[in-house]
Amino acid sequence: MERDLPIGIFDSGVGGLTVYRALHERLPNERFVYLGDTARVPYGTKSLTTVERYAVENARFLARHGTKLLVVACNTASALALPAVRRAVSIPVVGVIEPGARLAVARSRRRRIGVIATEATVRSRAYATTIAHLAPDAHVIERSCPLFVPLAEEGWADTTVARLVAEEYLEDLRDSGIDVLVLGCTHYPILRRTIQQAVGEGIKLIESGEAVAEEVAQLLEERSLSARVKRDERERRLGDDLDHFYVTDAAERFARVAERFLGQAPTVLEAVEI
Amino acid sequence: MERDLPIGIFDSGVGGLTVYRALHERLPNERFVYLGDTARVPYGTKSLTTVERYAVENARFLARHGTKLLVVACNTASALALPAVRRAVSIPVVGVIEPGARLAVARSRRRRIGVIATEATVRSRAYATTIAHLAPDAHVIERSCPLFVPLAEEGWADTTVARLVAEEYLEDLRDSGIDVLVLGCTHYPILRRTIQQAVGEGIKLIESGEAVAEEVAQLLEERSLSARVKRDERERRLGDDLDHFYVTDAAERFARVAERFLGQAPTVLEAVEI
Repeated sequence: MERDLPIGIFDSGVGGLTVYRALHERLPNERFVYLGDTARVPYGTKSLTTVERYAVENARFLARHGTKLLVVACNTASALALPAVRRAVSIPVVGVIEPGARLAVARSRRRRIGVIATEATVRSRAYATTIAHLAPDAHVIERSCPLFVPLAEEGWADTTVARLVAEEYLEDLRDSGIDVLVLGCTHYPILRRTIQQAVGEGIKLIESGEAVAEEVAQLLEERSLSARVKRDERERRLGDDLDHFYVTDAAERFARVAERFLGQAPTVLEAVEI
Repeated sequence: MERDLPIGIFDSGVGGLTVYRALHERLPNERFVYLGDTARVPYGTKSLTTVERYAVENARFLARHGTKLLVVACNTASALALPAVRRAVSIPVVGVIEPGARLAVARSRRRRIGVIATEATVRSRAYATTIAHLAPDAHVIERSCPLFVPLAEEGWADTTVARLVAEEYLEDLRDSGIDVLVLGCTHYPILRRTIQQAVGEGIKLIESGEAVAEEVAQLLEERSLSARVKRDERERRLGDDLDHFYVTDAAERFARVAERFLGQAPTVLEAVEI
């Protein structure tokens, strides 16, 4: 039955695993299929047309594999390609921008909200537009931080270099009067400590993973799509019924980074061509 | 006639422009068609299969456009995909590894040669293998420097951050007894000053651009493929007969970085899908 199908998640690479982790914790009965488009990462420096094409290809791949709901875990793809993805597949689609924006608005008292993201996400003004809808009186300051993704991928999150880069990018945000800062790229939670240091303890950091998990939980409930069988029971019954991870390239590198993220390497990991 | 056709050059992005510049200076009568695969950059973190596929697609695109010779300006593609590219097209193909290795051997007195390159190039051992053929007694030390490409693309070549990153990557090369260091990625010449500082003035840096231009000049001569008409005359006769630049994505960003590299933005720049 449809409700027993897995939930599809895609990201440009490993960053979306931070969203996967939040979903997995919030919805322990659900199964997941994750696709990391590691052959074409990064998305954040690419154009609207290209990001749309890649996102639609990823969404179709996951829809073909039998998923009941699709989470676009990549901020850049959510900012640029959500309408195109919704046209391309018939299952419900959840992006990461709106849940993150909603959480930021809920947590900001001063109504001054900072957003850090990739060049493409910032250029799209997706966060500013969404926040303006939710809270017309809110003031939004956006900054792109292109070196954060390669620093996270290189495993240099807590180095002097990362701290210097963060200070360079975030110096003016520190004294801009914002009280919350949205980590508007799924890679950035890996640099959380370094970012917090650079902006100071007075600014709350917002990760969208948790908010996305909450939205997905509600949607499943509303549409009677929640899995009926407990995950533990199912795993006892069917040994191979585990979460499935696909990458478009370099599975080994993905497994290494995923292990750092999740505490363990993915059991079922497969390289595919899209 | 065949000899009047342009020379094709491709790279994963803007880095190959350092090779284009050297070719343009050495062969002022030739015309060039440059393809930067900006939609799929970087290649250096990708697998053999994927780099081969991308390189063959790029080579076919340039061959279809009527070129008499093909320069693979990307070190990663040269290291991993030269045999596949040669099978895919019928024109002569020149890579950047062998000319660079030859120059390094010629300039090293101590027969201790350092090579810095992308992860994929280092993993391929292409430089070590080529140098071993040319000088069996030479000792080669290779290091990958993944953050150099994003630093160059971000325009941070001469910053404190770049200097710290260079020191971190190159500290042990400094005292390893090498007397030459090959810049085994076409992006690295942009960080030349920072790299020289990190390893000290005693080590000669080797860029392959010049060596590649020399090899191409010889090949054109041997095969009677040199252009007959002087470039200046041709440009006077045909206004549109200029070097042509193609990118697979984000032409604006390419133009901006190209201007920094070449001193002027490309006149004819077109985005294509491959």
